[in-house]
Amino acid sequence: VPGLRQHLVSLGQEFYRRGWVMGTSGNFSIVQSNRPLTLVMTPSGAHKGRLKASDLLLVDGQGRPKNRARKPSAETLLHLEIVRDRSAGAVLHTHSVWSTILSERHRDAGGLAIAGYEMLKGLEGVTTHEHREWIPILANDQDMPRLAGRLRETLAAHAAAHAVLLSGHGMYTWGRTADEAVRHVEILEFLLEVIGRQESRSWPQ
Amino acid sequence: VPGLRQHLVSLGQEFYRRGWVMGTSGNFSIVQSNRPLTLVMTPSGAHKGRLKASDLLLVDGQGRPKNRARKPSAETLLHLEIVRDRSAGAVLHTHSVWSTILSERHRDAGGLAIAGYEMLKGLEGVTTHEHREWIPILANDQDMPRLAGRLRETLAAHAAAHAVLLSGHGMYTWGRTADEAVRHVEILEFLLEVIGRQESRSWPQ
Amino acid sequence: VPGLRQHLVSLGQEFYRRGWVMGTSGNFSIVQSNRPLTLVMTPSGAHKGRLKASDLLLVDGQGRPKNRARKPSAETLLHLEIVRDRSAGAVLHTHSVWSTILSERHRDAGGLAIAGYEMLKGLEGVTTHEHREWIPILANDQDMPRLAGRLRETLAAHAAAHAVLLSGHGMYTWGRTADEAVRHVEILEFLLEVIGRQESRSWPQ
Amino acid sequence: VPGLRQHLVSLGQEFYRRGWVMGTSGNFSIVQSNRPLTLVMTPSGAHKGRLKASDLLLVDGQGRPKNRARKPSAETLLHLEIVRDRSAGAVLHTHSVWSTILSERHRDAGGLAIAGYEMLKGLEGVTTHEHREWIPILANDQDMPRLAGRLRETLAAHAAAHAVLLSGHGMYTWGRTADEAVRHVEILEFLLEVIGRQESRSWPQ
Repeated sequence: VPGLRQHLVSLGQEFYRRGWVMGTSGNFSIVQSNRPLTLVMTPSGAHKGRLKASDLLLVDGQGRPKNRARKPSAETLLHLEIVRDRSAGAVLHTHSVWSTILSERHRDAGGLAIAGYEMLKGLEGVTTHEHREWIPILANDQDMPRLAGRLRETLAAHAAAHAVLLSGHGMYTWGRTADEAVRHVEILEFLLEVIGRQESRSWPQ
Repeated sequence: VPGLRQHLVSLGQEFYRRGWVMGTSGNFSIVQSNRPLTLVMTPSGAHKGRLKASDLLLVDGQGRPKNRARKPSAETLLHLEIVRDRSAGAVLHTHSVWSTILSERHRDAGGLAIAGYEMLKGLEGVTTHEHREWIPILANDQDMPRLAGRLRETLAAHAAAHAVLLSGHGMYTWGRTADEAVRHVEILEFLLEVIGRQESRSWPQ
Repeated sequence: VPGLRQHLVSLGQEFYRRGWVMGTSGNFSIVQSNRPLTLVMTPSGAHKGRLKASDLLLVDGQGRPKNRARKPSAETLLHLEIVRDRSAGAVLHTHSVWSTILSERHRDAGGLAIAGYEMLKGLEGVTTHEHREWIPILANDQDMPRLAGRLRETLAAHAAAHAVLLSGHGMYTWGRTADEAVRHVEILEFLLEVIGRQESRSWPQ
Repeated sequence: VPGLRQHLVSLGQEFYRRGWVMGTSGNFSIVQSNRPLTLVMTPSGAHKGRLKASDLLLVDGQGRPKNRARKPSAETLLHLEIVRDRSAGAVLHTHSVWSTILSERHRDAGGLAIAGYEMLKGLEGVTTHEHREWIPILANDQDMPRLAGRLRETLAAHAAAHAVLLSGHGMYTWGRTADEAVRHVEILEFLLEVIGRQESRSWPQ
């Protein structure tokens, strides 16, 4: 667990440097054990760039804190849906400028396609740039059980998706390991910036 | 006081890294005591990214330096208005590219609305993304007592506002504590960048 | 070799900081010896911002690893083409937002011209800003021997070119030394950002 | 001199971090003595983000190196014109993306006006945002004596200017001290980014 905790502290610092977890936005979890399901997770309201290892919580499979006074994030239910549906070992929620812009702009379409980029090969299981990644977008919601239910349906309906956007609320991605999840964050944030800059310009015809 | 001073030195370095206090722009204060009102404050003309703890001033409730040769910032009066009207424990003035652009562009409207973003929940007292934050914009002015008077009226007229923009001159925000004020800076600078990038594009119809 | 390895580790960290090698994108090589041809090279699938010196491979002139279990990058053949055609001492492949955008946008034209900038003088052999640099763009391809063949033809057809773009896949540049190759990366990434920002705007007439 | 040298090394690192001296672009000088005129200066072809104190040259009032094998920058003559005309103690040449874009776009107008921004008050002698700063733009030229002559005329014709742009070649600014010159760089780079982002957008009418 010390290793897992330190890993979350370090990636919080790196993501903060890049502007992906400003204020108290974002949250991260790593699966500590599968039986019983236990996550090491960032607490509610913490600044992700200035975490201490002792800030991190252990939560069980119902999202209850195991041994801490500190409050789990309201979004713990979303992490648990992903862990269960994707057999993920880590779930990372970032909140960047470009994911926010694109999640609003493509919300009515229910998602966003990214196709033809070499960078897509960094997503687990993708072996060619001739891949079309569909990132579903869910309407944001403060009712977490309801949002968790919609996330479950979305994950089931898009079994190949590597990430989900919440409108006006950033990105969730995951991986079998924390390193894989970090790789997915870096790749998807890069591609969202590419798409965002391309779409918004008035390129000469 | 050593702790407060070091806090201002550190946040100056971080804000400088992000380009929010270039040149000698920006200024910060933390309330050291309420009776009598005493602020620890950045001095006039200092570089906020290269502060030393000994550069910081103590100023009283009239904006007079208590025990230092160094000159208080001309904008000390603005800090005092905010501390009194909002019962703030810290006031932070940043001067970013996006706040400058938007404060000019929306100046004739007298302010700028930000609505529907999850990031708004990081503002004190906001509990849902279904919130409309109105950021008043004041015309810039070199007459500080006059500007302080207009700021007082604006704070009174917009009791729910978490920040004020000065046209062509950046943002003032605050918090009960320095940490809360820093959180407000990060959230509002993020949202201003989102708004600025969205507004200025010619999105395809 | 320790010096060469440490050099690659350091430049990986710097390029990562700038967002030029996100995820597992990018790869680097330095010629260790010419007879027999031996490259020190980043391995397949490694994160370029978090390399350890021991991650680096030695590969021979056919792209085979000399003494390591770790797998060479599939793009080793591209490095070898460049080393042979340009007598390069180092080859650097970066994968930035702007090179990705421009490599897609100018793909049908087969390349991109950059002319009139002082920064061009940092390219080896260029002595005035009145220079026109043509950067050829190759369609991306997962068939490496085929792509290597097309790269060989492109290098021969554009003997004065300092770099090549792969569409949706970033930039290859090189130098007689690692320092020269790094200089070329910095200069070309700068110029691609300038061109990208200029082209995509609707400047008032 | 050790202090002056270390100052140049440090500001090179900071400007490099911000992308203002990529490749071998940019050059800096500080006046070491006025009688006889002696500058501590960055050498030709050096990377400004990786300077060592021992890389720096002493040059005399004719731009000749005093005690070093290393070659002075071809642009030493420009530094000497500025030192003489403005009685400057330091001259800094940066080469940013935004100064490059604007120096091309406004070249036919012979310059660029910046007015109404609070940030202007950081320029020496400016006391209100109601200031109009005119930044002259000179066509770039590889003939240094000729360019130096045109710079001399431009400085004389625009006695109030705090900086000059060379088209496609970045900015020269200066100060009585190195700190003042650095402040001018930060303020002008900030304002050029604001202007560049504002001008290039198609704001809704």
